[in-house]
Amino acid sequence: METELSTSLGIEHAIFGFTPFPAVAAAITRAGGLGVLGAVRYTAPDDLRRDLDWMERHTGGGPYGLDVVMPARQAGPPGAPAPTEAEVEAMIPEGHRRFVRDTLARHGVPGLPDGEASGWRITGWMEHIARSQLDVAFDYPIKLLANALGSPPADVVARAHGQGVQVAALAGSARHARRHADAGIDIVVAQGYEAGGHTGEIATMVLTPEVVDAVDPLPVLAAGGIGSGEQIAAALALGAQGAWLGSLWLTTIEAELHSRALTGKLLAAGSGDTVRSRALTGKPARQLRTEWTDAWDGPESPGALPMPLQGLLVAEAVSRIQKHDVVPLLGTPVGQIVGRMNSERAVRAVMDDLTRGFERAVDRVNRIAGRS
Amino acid sequence: METELSTSLGIEHAIFGFTPFPAVAAAITRAGGLGVLGAVRYTAPDDLRRDLDWMERHTGGGPYGLDVVMPARQAGPPGAPAPTEAEVEAMIPEGHRRFVRDTLARHGVPGLPDGEASGWRITGWMEHIARSQLDVAFDYPIKLLANALGSPPADVVARAHGQGVQVAALAGSARHARRHADAGIDIVVAQGYEAGGHTGEIATMVLTPEVVDAVDPLPVLAAGGIGSGEQIAAALALGAQGAWLGSLWLTTIEAELHSRALTGKLLAAGSGDTVRSRALTGKPARQLRTEWTDAWDGPESPGALPMPLQGLLVAEAVSRIQKHDVVPLLGTPVGQIVGRMNSERAVRAVMDDLTRGFERAVDRVNRIAGRS
Repeated sequence: METELSTSLGIEHAIFGFTPFPAVAAAITRAGGLGVLGAVRYTAPDDLRRDLDWMERHTGGGPYGLDVVMPARQAGPPGAPAPTEAEVEAMIPEGHRRFVRDTLARHGVPGLPDGEASGWRITGWMEHIARSQLDVAFDYPIKLLANALGSPPADVVARAHGQGVQVAALAGSARHARRHADAGIDIVVAQGYEAGGHTGEIATMVLTPEVVDAVDPLPVLAAGGIGSGEQIAAALALGAQGAWLGSLWLTTIEAELHSRALTGKLLAAGSGDTVRSRALTGKPARQLRTEWTDAWDGPESPGALPMPLQGLLVAEAVSRIQKHDVVPLLGTPVGQIVGRMNSERAVRAVMDDLTRGFERAVDRVNRIAGRS
Repeated sequence: METELSTSLGIEHAIFGFTPFPAVAAAITRAGGLGVLGAVRYTAPDDLRRDLDWMERHTGGGPYGLDVVMPARQAGPPGAPAPTEAEVEAMIPEGHRRFVRDTLARHGVPGLPDGEASGWRITGWMEHIARSQLDVAFDYPIKLLANALGSPPADVVARAHGQGVQVAALAGSARHARRHADAGIDIVVAQGYEAGGHTGEIATMVLTPEVVDAVDPLPVLAAGGIGSGEQIAAALALGAQGAWLGSLWLTTIEAELHSRALTGKLLAAGSGDTVRSRALTGKPARQLRTEWTDAWDGPESPGALPMPLQGLLVAEAVSRIQKHDVVPLLGTPVGQIVGRMNSERAVRAVMDDLTRGFERAVDRVNRIAGRS
């Protein structure tokens, strides 16, 4: 499964696997794809350095990438110095804090143990944190730098290019994609409505060819709704130069979800069990539908705050829900493809399935086209 | 472009074109696809007879089908005799009527001329009307009977089968699709979120293979987001035995939209200019986003009524908006694919584009698979 882009990156299959887990990213790379490690949870640069050292030892020299989250805009007035986390915290209305407290109380969610800080921090979304992650990442031979929120700043793109690193950015519309192309990025990830995480309203089937046309000749990866080789074949038929998969890895054996209960929810969920909600970050992000997202969509909800306020607001609540495994509230970003994530398998087995399914789909369209 | 299903129906290309316009349906059939005429607007059986006579003369003996709208449930208590239109009208709350009047008044929409009845009637959605359409249709050699709302009643399926007519039903989820299979229908149309008209929340990329698996070995048509040969190739890669296209024909030269202004809106619209709204029928249906759908989604809206009440409520308003070409309110059901409907072309030219694009996509995936 080779495209110009996969050749330029030195991978065997045009499969790009986004994951927060180094063991998953490394296994994707070892299986011939490109593992892309999500950096957002690394608020301490040393933790990222430790895991990239580990990646170096476990990718067998194969290419891998890093995904950061640099928002196009900071909270606060434009042109002002970046606010501190405390300043951002102070922007959160008391009514919203009360809604979080009441919702947690209604579900009997205990607090965090004394002295334990919220493990789930939104600060990785803030530009100075993302920049400290990049300072670490550029010490390693990463092949791809992806940004999940808008185009990265011009100096970051220039620095990446100076080190031979291709830059990718996610887009939910042709207009966003053209903005990325104007900003000098190399690869657009067209992220359809059905994708997990931040996503727009245009479905992958429609979005992919629109973005391909909009940024031609830049390569486009299709994201959203892809969890089988047949779906990869569909994405490639639509003009993509590869498929970007995120959700599918969450139920691999190498994934380190914080609890078995969450894995169980993912394995049991159908394609209709996700919701596109602002409850997690302030921007619409597809995730498991839970009693937590239902509360934010319900009549008592004060409505989500803009990014990054919402993330700060709910950070401790999410930590408490995870810490105590409060199953009805337990969720995670995931796409509609969760409906086919029904067993735990090794990354290698998943990759083998993807490439076999792709070959089957090629056979199928050839038969239909009367070419076999 | 041949599948088992297209072979069984005697068509050259596995392309199924749904349209309310006989001239479009006949042209699709003449170009090697299967034209499916929407029957919902034929409230008088003689009008349908006249147009089916016309189809017979203009399809050159090629196969065509009919699409009816038989709701799974009637309004009113279960088991009760079907209510009359007047009885259904009486269920509409006065607050809803006031909202319609106020919204029309705010946009200065004139009334209908004296003696002119609302041209757009919802009565085609009621079972006894659909049955009178079927009584006409079975006098003609239709090859396919499609139902847009649930499985048709068992006696209708039996009657179709007795005449060698295959029965198709639309499904927005694997669960719906299995219900159709249990009801003895022959073909499931998996209608994705991005489709025009009634649609669920699962996108075509995810829905198609789910439905294929759910009803195997029944053939599945993919619908939603399909307006190019590349998208047809994607649908076939996903396991569909054909593609079901509706929106794309609205801007063909043969289409008879009621006004140039509406054609202009369709040609200008982008993929982000549709909305999934209950404003037209009471069930979520994707359509052009207009000031009319915005009003129903706005803070003053009383909320849409259930089907068929909403359709009856807005029938006269829709007629007035169309009659007077009130452009800001003027809409139509259409899918996200409207973003690529940017020129008026003959059906034959559209069909040629679809088959050429399909061949290009097959070339492309073969190159990527290293088979050429």
